Amino acid sequence: MEFAYLGPRGTFTEAALRRLPAAKGATTVPMASIVEVLEAVRRGEVDAGFVPIENSQEGTVTLTVDELVGGDPLVIAGEVVLPVTFVLASAKPAAEIATVASHPHAIAQTRGFLRRELPNAVVHQALSTAQAAQRVVDGEFDAAVCAPFTAEAVGLPVQAFDIGDNSGAETRFVHVVRPAAPPEPSGNDITSLVVYIDHDRVGALLAVLTELAIRGINLTRIESRPTGEGLGRYAFFLDCTGHLADARMGEALTGLRRICADVRYLGSYPRDHSDRPVPPPEGLSDGDFADAAAWLERLRSGGAA
Amino acid sequence: MEFAYLGPRGTFTEAALRRLPAAKGATTVPMASIVEVLEAVRRGEVDAGFVPIENSQEGTVTLTVDELVGGDPLVIAGEVVLPVTFVLASAKPAAEIATVASHPHAIAQTRGFLRRELPNAVVHQALSTAQAAQRVVDGEFDAAVCAPFTAEAVGLPVQAFDIGDNSGAETRFVHVVRPAAPPEPSGNDITSLVVYIDHDRVGALLAVLTELAIRGINLTRIESRPTGEGLGRYAFFLDCTGHLADARMGEALTGLRRICADVRYLGSYPRDHSDRPVPPPEGLSDGDFADAAAWLERLRSGGAA
Amino acid sequence: MEFAYLGPRGTFTEAALRRLPAAKGATTVPMASIVEVLEAVRRGEVDAGFVPIENSQEGTVTLTVDELVGGDPLVIAGEVVLPVTFVLASAKPAAEIATVASHPHAIAQTRGFLRRELPNAVVHQALSTAQAAQRVVDGEFDAAVCAPFTAEAVGLPVQAFDIGDNSGAETRFVHVVRPAAPPEPSGNDITSLVVYIDHDRVGALLAVLTELAIRGINLTRIESRPTGEGLGRYAFFLDCTGHLADARMGEALTGLRRICADVRYLGSYPRDHSDRPVPPPEGLSDGDFADAAAWLERLRSGGAA
Amino acid sequence: MEFAYLGPRGTFTEAALRRLPAAKGATTVPMASIVEVLEAVRRGEVDAGFVPIENSQEGTVTLTVDELVGGDPLVIAGEVVLPVTFVLASAKPAAEIATVASHPHAIAQTRGFLRRELPNAVVHQALSTAQAAQRVVDGEFDAAVCAPFTAEAVGLPVQAFDIGDNSGAETRFVHVVRPAAPPEPSGNDITSLVVYIDHDRVGALLAVLTELAIRGINLTRIESRPTGEGLGRYAFFLDCTGHLADARMGEALTGLRRICADVRYLGSYPRDHSDRPVPPPEGLSDGDFADAAAWLERLRSGGAA
Repeated sequence: MEFAYLGPRGTFTEAALRRLPAAKGATTVPMASIVEVLEAVRRGEVDAGFVPIENSQEGTVTLTVDELVGGDPLVIAGEVVLPVTFVLASAKPAAEIATVASHPHAIAQTRGFLRRELPNAVVHQALSTAQAAQRVVDGEFDAAVCAPFTAEAVGLPVQAFDIGDNSGAETRFVHVVRPAAPPEPSGNDITSLVVYIDHDRVGALLAVLTELAIRGINLTRIESRPTGEGLGRYAFFLDCTGHLADARMGEALTGLRRICADVRYLGSYPRDHSDRPVPPPEGLSDGDFADAAAWLERLRSGGAA
Repeated sequence: MEFAYLGPRGTFTEAALRRLPAAKGATTVPMASIVEVLEAVRRGEVDAGFVPIENSQEGTVTLTVDELVGGDPLVIAGEVVLPVTFVLASAKPAAEIATVASHPHAIAQTRGFLRRELPNAVVHQALSTAQAAQRVVDGEFDAAVCAPFTAEAVGLPVQAFDIGDNSGAETRFVHVVRPAAPPEPSGNDITSLVVYIDHDRVGALLAVLTELAIRGINLTRIESRPTGEGLGRYAFFLDCTGHLADARMGEALTGLRRICADVRYLGSYPRDHSDRPVPPPEGLSDGDFADAAAWLERLRSGGAA
Repeated sequence: MEFAYLGPRGTFTEAALRRLPAAKGATTVPMASIVEVLEAVRRGEVDAGFVPIENSQEGTVTLTVDELVGGDPLVIAGEVVLPVTFVLASAKPAAEIATVASHPHAIAQTRGFLRRELPNAVVHQALSTAQAAQRVVDGEFDAAVCAPFTAEAVGLPVQAFDIGDNSGAETRFVHVVRPAAPPEPSGNDITSLVVYIDHDRVGALLAVLTELAIRGINLTRIESRPTGEGLGRYAFFLDCTGHLADARMGEALTGLRRICADVRYLGSYPRDHSDRPVPPPEGLSDGDFADAAAWLERLRSGGAA
Repeated sequence: MEFAYLGPRGTFTEAALRRLPAAKGATTVPMASIVEVLEAVRRGEVDAGFVPIENSQEGTVTLTVDELVGGDPLVIAGEVVLPVTFVLASAKPAAEIATVASHPHAIAQTRGFLRRELPNAVVHQALSTAQAAQRVVDGEFDAAVCAPFTAEAVGLPVQAFDIGDNSGAETRFVHVVRPAAPPEPSGNDITSLVVYIDHDRVGALLAVLTELAIRGINLTRIESRPTGEGLGRYAFFLDCTGHLADARMGEALTGLRRICADVRYLGSYPRDHSDRPVPPPEGLSDGDFADAAAWLERLRSGGAA
């Protein structure tokens, strides 16, 4: 079993991959870009890919989403949600630090700390937090803002822990495979979709959300994306609660299929950090659907209601 | 084939029954009340019943609806919609008419005429327009307000035609049978339902209408009815466009079954006065449902979206 | 102060009128029909009218509703809800009763009792339960099904109490006046409306209900009515929770005014049997509306959000 | 008048700023990061800022959005939408190019061209397309993928035009100022908002969209954003059609204010590329609102409906 992931070694992505149950015992292969990871999966060169998709400090979300939405189909088979914590990694104490490097997003999220503690240091941008740490090791800069994991990986001491301005930040990563039946329902699953609608009308989006809401399906994420196909066609990336195998999800998907210009299914997979199953809303279990279908059959064959 | 109907002979109801295709060649049996008609059907004493249900001049709608909603199940197998026209039936010219009789609703709907043309006549209430006409024949009153058909049936001359204040009024009658599979779809059908919801919340009613609207099902009638089961439970009598056999109606019904406290199916039948079929809205034909179901199966078996 | 009401004396309507606070000390005038009552109010011959409007045993609802919807405007200034109870009024014991008379609706609602206790009695229809009782007094029939109040009024003994099949039945009556500012909010009010929409589309009705729902306004009654203006225009009679003076009701009404073909306001008045005020839903009090309006003003004048 | 913008000189952002009417004749100041631009505006060091916000090739959208959502309030006063076109900038013909540099997003969007035309070139990542072009000028790489404007700015010849895989791609930039009354309505405006809801319920989002939809307000963009305030609170970034001064927008905003945990107004400004005004939907003009308000006043003062 081989997993490609967004490298280099020592970034948040590698730390997250270590927590993915499906990657236990797998060979992991760092690649230089999200595109390369996903293409390697598409071509069958690896069994699976692992890339950041949401709220990343590395600015890569858009790229992952756009890759999943376009090109040959891929599906998500799992997710890992990792709290984002930053450290100041340096061989020198804060008072001696004249230059600091990091990815622009990491710099933005530690701005308060940098102003307060290193008001005179010059801040440099790097391609990733891992690259920044490596350039500190190489002697190019005095300090890097990076993950604790990254500092440890390159052997840099930590001068200050948890220096982010927003301590609740998280990054979400996804385990991507070629189209396949989803893992069994865990009782607390996400189904990811892209739906396309042909007009910029809130009414069309309301219709999409209504198809979900009446089946008790919630959204944990929504994002409109321009499609590049000219004005008037919009794509919406949706993360929905529930699993492809659920009766209510099945009916909702067929409803979306009928009303949308197009629907792309991107996988059903267990939510990370969810040890307790979430029961379906009242009246929306698979048993409720089976009961209602049996009642309809009775009516159609002339039985009493 | 025997049809019971709301008598006596000579009322709007008999005139309507003559226009029902399913009653061609049948024996027709007038009965004294709606309740008796429906009970005769329930007990199997007749094959079918025929009673007014909407906008009647005889004040009987509520009774029919309440009978269909309660008691042993019955279903509607057809409808007839009849324009309501009133005549002034009398052996005397208007100038000599001192007393006029009719059902209170017929009096109400010809008020303008009566004031204008018979300002000095004393108006009496009767149990039905047919009874009023008969009492004119019997010499009890000078004139009756009734249907042209009724005047003809009892042999009274017509002194004035079309004397109703609202010339577009219609009465609707239904053909009622014991539970049975509905007639084949005609392409322009009504499905009648009673749904029960447990709270007097507009939100619950919105949920019911949403289940219909997203499947392109319109309402031609809605009426809330107190259930007599205490505060908080409401019944809604709905006439919906579409047929029990339609895929979209089937899915809507199972949706209502799941979200409502109870659903009572009251029959699918062709709309009267509808010679042209109404195609289902875009994306909601049986073929569209079949396509979406096949797509879902492909996804569930691991195929590409 | 003069109140016209639907007579004759001795019916449910008079019993209800005695319970209306606004009628305390007023002169009451029975009239022969609902139409006459409402016309007397319109012409200013009386100060107010009092008529049944819902779930009546006398089959008069439709007439009242149609009168309020059409003709010169009237508004509802109060309501009385009366439990419907029937008695068997007769000078003879049950075993000796050969004929029973009542209004068709009252007969329908005591059918179980009549079958069980008087299986051999012949049942006759009368124009009202009061007329039936009077005809028993006159010796025409042996017994009448009527209200306890009616039996008392005509001096007939009661042979059996509470003989209705459905013990929770209620009749609702309304106090009607010429257009005027409504009574002060009581904290638990109804606002009655008629809205007209131009298509038989469930979507249009959904839009109407949405305008109410988003302001936390519930429906205690809904009924579609044909308008007689040809196909495609529907009227809906709505009883809504809340008062014309409420900010949320005002905004909802202006919303309906904008989206409906027409809106007719029929009055705001206290609910009967409501001693405890119902607070507005969260975020929908008059104070919440004032706060939001002040915030909007700040934004428009360039202040920070 | 001083505009700060995301530098360096020679990027898409500078090209876009040249097209902003409000920046005509202004002094423009490139800054190293989006954060620095917006902070300079907040502190009053410049009059306005100009930064990319959507579909950027530079991966900066998230940062701009997060900056507008958090920190001291800023509002958007204008936008520029620029088609994204890429060129291959190099002093050498394609056959001699061994190394190519660009920002990861630009590399991703020209992947098809690079594989087809430069299959053997090694691709390097740079911090921006402008930096890549400069490093080509400096002799570090053979070629850069960048905007035509950038190639021109650094004096590099163009070996191939319009090499993007998706020829319809656009980037959107915004003109940001300290809180102020918005520019006059142009007849085709956008209002940007952030709304916060307290549960991950599709029902809550449906309620938000309903407040917009019933006032005929469309969405041109929606994006959910984690708030970092723990589970259950979601922020939605919305671009809505219409202007703060519109009656319908005012009522929608007060509705959102009442139902959402919080609402942050981010400005009303003319849409770019919109020379023809878009009239409000039927029944939703300022005049319609004024008419409905006058009607409500008549009702409240006791006038006829």
